[in-house]
Amino acid sequence: MAETIDSQLQEYRDSIDNINAALIYLLSERFKVTKKVGALKAERNYPAADKAREAEQIARLRDLAEAANLDPDFTERILEFIIAEVIRDHEKIKSGG
Amino acid sequence: MAETIDSQLQEYRDSIDNINAALIYLLSERFKVTKKVGALKAERNYPAADKAREAEQIARLRDLAEAANLDPDFTERILEFIIAEVIRDHEKIKSGG
Repeated sequence: MAETIDSQLQEYRDSIDNINAALIYLLSERFKVTKKVGALKAERNYPAADKAREAEQIARLRDLAEAANLDPDFTERILEFIIAEVIRDHEKIKSGG
Repeated sequence: MAETIDSQLQEYRDSIDNINAALIYLLSERFKVTKKVGALKAERNYPAADKAREAEQIARLRDLAEAANLDPDFTERILEFIIAEVIRDHEKIKSGG
């Protein structure tokens, strides 16, 4: 029984590893796009953060999270975490760093 | 010129919206698997957290992050954030909640 469960656990972990890799590559694509947004904002002298756009993204993602059966609060926190990193990136681009 | 840039910004934002949705659905899949792991762990009375597995995942993801040109420290923080949520989930499953 222990072996059945452990091979089952290993199977689940293999799936988690695959999903982790997919998340990383998707996040990398997302940062590629947000870096371009950062360059555009620096060019136009727009502020690095955009509260209206951020609120719109969060509202949309909360809806999507519910559709995907994911906790909307958790989803909002993770998006805010990513956005904070993006804003740091935009500020670096703006200051030419 | 302003209009060219704004339509460009809109194009980037459309891509970000698509990637956000993909991230949500992928995270939802990940939680489906980790919930199964939680049920297995509860059945076997394994602890909710597994430091060795966590360290292994983090090391692997830091390597993947470098390959994907993503900041490994940021990637580690985001994985820890997800894992913390998973552990809360596992504890809820264990306590029958």
